[in-house]
Amino acid sequence: MNARLDVIGLGPGREGLITPEAQAALDAAKAVFGYGPYLDRIPPRDGQTRHPSDNRVELARAEAALTAAAEGSRVAMVSGGDPGVFAMAAAVCEAVEAGPETWRRIDIVMHPGITAMLALAARVGAPLGHDFCAISLSDNLKPWPLVERRLVAAAGAGFVMALYNPISRARPWQLGAAFELLRAQLPAETPVIFGRAVAREDERIAITTLAEADPAQADMATCLIIGTSETRVITRPALPPLVYTPRRAPA
Amino acid sequence: MNARLDVIGLGPGREGLITPEAQAALDAAKAVFGYGPYLDRIPPRDGQTRHPSDNRVELARAEAALTAAAEGSRVAMVSGGDPGVFAMAAAVCEAVEAGPETWRRIDIVMHPGITAMLALAARVGAPLGHDFCAISLSDNLKPWPLVERRLVAAAGAGFVMALYNPISRARPWQLGAAFELLRAQLPAETPVIFGRAVAREDERIAITTLAEADPAQADMATCLIIGTSETRVITRPALPPLVYTPRRAPA
Repeated sequence: MNARLDVIGLGPGREGLITPEAQAALDAAKAVFGYGPYLDRIPPRDGQTRHPSDNRVELARAEAALTAAAEGSRVAMVSGGDPGVFAMAAAVCEAVEAGPETWRRIDIVMHPGITAMLALAARVGAPLGHDFCAISLSDNLKPWPLVERRLVAAAGAGFVMALYNPISRARPWQLGAAFELLRAQLPAETPVIFGRAVAREDERIAITTLAEADPAQADMATCLIIGTSETRVITRPALPPLVYTPRRAPA
Repeated sequence: MNARLDVIGLGPGREGLITPEAQAALDAAKAVFGYGPYLDRIPPRDGQTRHPSDNRVELARAEAALTAAAEGSRVAMVSGGDPGVFAMAAAVCEAVEAGPETWRRIDIVMHPGITAMLALAARVGAPLGHDFCAISLSDNLKPWPLVERRLVAAAGAGFVMALYNPISRARPWQLGAAFELLRAQLPAETPVIFGRAVAREDERIAITTLAEADPAQADMATCLIIGTSETRVITRPALPPLVYTPRRAPA
């Protein structure tokens, strides 16, 4: 048997939002690696070992999974959302590049998933309906001035923005700083959407404006979408508002 | 029964990449609206009517689906990929905003899907592993100078770029112009990935560089990913290369 590692996107966290291919790869695995809370989402299976690890040890987790795969076990690595969006796929590639030659012979199969911004956008309408960008606010692996430069560039060029990793205990001020910066670039009434634990039981969605947005509305499980000056909010009598960014853009 | 419209992301085009929730909504529909080639991907069902329409009539298609939903039919609108990414969700919202008051009482449920850039990224590694943006190269609904401004802003700020709608018979020169513009901003060896019909039988993926990228490699069914100066290509002896953008960024 050829060595193989399946890197699996679990989507936002509801079973009905995992693709059948990702589910089948997960079912076939003998060993499953991942961040503890993601592993907790998966029902235990007979004959399948679980290898939870902590947050912020992505490279060590990738190395452990590659080691197990190279030894011939059928291994899965799980990520929330899509593994390629601020998740485990890049860490696995990094580990392969820096690792032993044998790891370059492992068949690595990435299974895409519904990433947080797509799940959140679907819940409120079509806020990503025009050109958009995705920015991680974490400055663990990049300097904060680079994050600022990207926020300013995105606002100036009219991109809708999805913000990942907005806040954590170790990074309490970054989201507030981002709002402050963006308030100097975008109209006060620009729609801002907070989506916490989207598609899970404890989902909490809030639609507000850039002027009113409060960093305290976000936590580690939150993704944000910040509209442009074109983004619209349609009020409806008996339903939540629809938020969308028109396909048509002025010059 | 309350009026309802399900807006469904079919993903890249393979059944195993449609979420179970999207599939269930599709199965339950009495009438299915969509661009002809997307409807062709769905097996016909007894008791389900199909309402194909041409490309570039998104608003009329949305209006027709909303009209049918308001009349009490269980209606689905299908999109390739994710309906919220350069697809039908925004057109539906536009139609609701401009339409009769009764349309604001229709329960509109968006079902997210695997959008092209996620499917393509998964096939080659993790090129979207860092901050990224998605830009439609179509200038049907926005002026071309705005596209150019966004390309320059994205390259300058170090975003990986996913390019949608790169080329068509009516828009033959835009992708070449984009490459020319980006060659002035990014290193010649910046990785460029062409993904045509990703995850379908006629899939064709090519990994090249910005210097070598040829617009003739793209067609209407192609999505492109353009890396940054940090994006890496890992060669492997018996497998295709892995392309990824590291999570860590220099100042």
